[in-house]
Amino acid sequence: MKLNILKDSLNDSIQHVSRAISSRTTIPILSGIKIDVQPDGVTLTASDTEISVQSFIALEKEGTEIIHVETPGSVVLPAKFFTEIIKKLPSSDVTIEVRDNFITWIRSGSAEIQIVGLDPEEYPLLPQLEEQSVVSIPSDLLKTMIRQTTFAVSTSETSPILTGVLWNFSPDRLKLIACDRLRMASREAQIEAGTETGLQNIVIAGKSLNELNKLLPDQNTPIEIVVANNQVLFKIDHILFYTRILDGAYPDTSKLIPQSFQTHLTIDTKKLADAIDRAYLLSREEKTNIVKMTLKDERTVEISSSSSELGKVTEQIDTHELTGDLLSVSFNSKYMLDALKVIDSDFISLCFRGAMQPIIMKPDDHGNMLHLIMPYRTTN
Amino acid sequence: MKLNILKDSLNDSIQHVSRAISSRTTIPILSGIKIDVQPDGVTLTASDTEISVQSFIALEKEGTEIIHVETPGSVVLPAKFFTEIIKKLPSSDVTIEVRDNFITWIRSGSAEIQIVGLDPEEYPLLPQLEEQSVVSIPSDLLKTMIRQTTFAVSTSETSPILTGVLWNFSPDRLKLIACDRLRMASREAQIEAGTETGLQNIVIAGKSLNELNKLLPDQNTPIEIVVANNQVLFKIDHILFYTRILDGAYPDTSKLIPQSFQTHLTIDTKKLADAIDRAYLLSREEKTNIVKMTLKDERTVEISSSSSELGKVTEQIDTHELTGDLLSVSFNSKYMLDALKVIDSDFISLCFRGAMQPIIMKPDDHGNMLHLIMPYRTTN
Repeated sequence: MKLNILKDSLNDSIQHVSRAISSRTTIPILSGIKIDVQPDGVTLTASDTEISVQSFIALEKEGTEIIHVETPGSVVLPAKFFTEIIKKLPSSDVTIEVRDNFITWIRSGSAEIQIVGLDPEEYPLLPQLEEQSVVSIPSDLLKTMIRQTTFAVSTSETSPILTGVLWNFSPDRLKLIACDRLRMASREAQIEAGTETGLQNIVIAGKSLNELNKLLPDQNTPIEIVVANNQVLFKIDHILFYTRILDGAYPDTSKLIPQSFQTHLTIDTKKLADAIDRAYLLSREEKTNIVKMTLKDERTVEISSSSSELGKVTEQIDTHELTGDLLSVSFNSKYMLDALKVIDSDFISLCFRGAMQPIIMKPDDHGNMLHLIMPYRTTN
Repeated sequence: MKLNILKDSLNDSIQHVSRAISSRTTIPILSGIKIDVQPDGVTLTASDTEISVQSFIALEKEGTEIIHVETPGSVVLPAKFFTEIIKKLPSSDVTIEVRDNFITWIRSGSAEIQIVGLDPEEYPLLPQLEEQSVVSIPSDLLKTMIRQTTFAVSTSETSPILTGVLWNFSPDRLKLIACDRLRMASREAQIEAGTETGLQNIVIAGKSLNELNKLLPDQNTPIEIVVANNQVLFKIDHILFYTRILDGAYPDTSKLIPQSFQTHLTIDTKKLADAIDRAYLLSREEKTNIVKMTLKDERTVEISSSSSELGKVTEQIDTHELTGDLLSVSFNSKYMLDALKVIDSDFISLCFRGAMQPIIMKPDDHGNMLHLIMPYRTTN
């Protein structure tokens, strides 16, 4: 294997696949990046068994030669050292050559590096997915949907299925749901189902989705999603992102949502978020995060928290609209802030069924998003 | 105590004194910030016993009223919560009022906060320094001198005096020296000694100097340094920075520097630094940091490192000038990089007395700085 490649292109591609490098792998070959050089370009691969990322670099880009292949071939190079040394090479041009025993020579300007490579035959094969179940979704929308739900997954491994986000496909809609027993976030959107009619529901680990989100471009480039038995593949331009589908049945979260409410409140999202943020500062010091919301009258909501050691925070905000019974409810302010942060609308609606019943939050201007927060049972 | 103050000015002042707040203090009152309101302005004080910082806010700044004092007085408020809540207040205007039992009311826009304050009488007094031993030095120069030496202090508590930087005052010069047995950095400059003739040498903890450096402005504002028996005070505009002088005798480092050399090398600073940085990447993986410099001939220096597991990095750099014996020397590349980073000159001189003798490095264009690095004794 021998080739010439522009440093910046190689570097970009390494950054992409690095998402799948775990510093704590128990499988030595997976601490490496696999490099495959074919006559038409170079493919880098990295995997931590949960996710695998493949990035392809074509010979040319916009008329500029990126790669000159002398001899095709493959090698696996230790990810950390390879990543760092490529970044710091003195010239914009890099020659990579694999000699006997996978010893790899890297030359750039005056620098000459020999890296002890590993046998690419030992590298696990990526899953071959049958491309029968394909949907397409614009990258920016997908990115937003992931951001608006993934924060709510459970971090506890006691019920592994809740560490994932449910992807609920219906013929022309996709709905993402995350929940951790004390809160729930859901977001849906219209999608083009492509040739596919009955796509199954799948659950993908929140951690994997956070890595995927870093690779998704902010533009509305279409992203193809290929779903197979136990793997799902996201096709992002020249990057392939594979992740495992979590085993197990996701709970039916629709039962959590009350069907009728005593009280409806509409309020300025930012004003509410800022007031809760100040009250959170105090409740965080107490390590409880408990903040209280009191509907004082039709026009006034009071946000407060108190700590016997530190003091008290109180703030009154004007409502936009308030109908139904007045009440007082305490909740985990961190959870409330997480939800408020991902709601992009200027006003939000909160629906209450009582001090001990789930709080429902929705943007005021559309019904594509819903957040649920369980209240705290406090004595006052 | 009651006053009105602009949030941004209060915030700036809190940021200054926060440098002296330790998260691990064993003295409860020192986890607070002391606020003194006098008719002419507000003084904030924080201390962790090693360093103390005082910041004064005047009633007016450039014709704008910053503070309106209703009733003078004092209180101590818990630093962390006070700092964070002031940052997040809704209005640019803040009212602070201390009522019974040091309960402090903070009002800003719609937000009302009560903080349980502490008795200011319990707050330790700052040292009163006699202003007899005063020198003045431009802030930017002082900042540079600290940056160019402090990195080389010892981090080991086995000889506490070496965790400090020696401040060597002569009638019109100041020289800072830091050393940790394997390396040494020194930097001197001409200063105005003011009225002072025989200022003593002092040693100041590297940690304290790093905090001081964050408060020093980048301009050439004069900084007054007041030296007393066991304390030194830096006067930075409206900020006073006190720190303890370390006890003990600082070793005589001049003995470490060889008086004659076999070999003199002048070389491009950046090219040398970049090559050593690449070799360091490999040696760091081996956890040795050992890099070898070989003077091949009059024109060529080779930088290399190798690891049986990972591979080898080799690079040749052109010399600017090389006189004397050719030799090969191994050293801790992290130490060499630390020194190269603070040398602002384009070319540096390296002087060698042999493979086992200290390496001396100086900027090529002035003699105000000197770095010493002990070589490794390797078998090849």
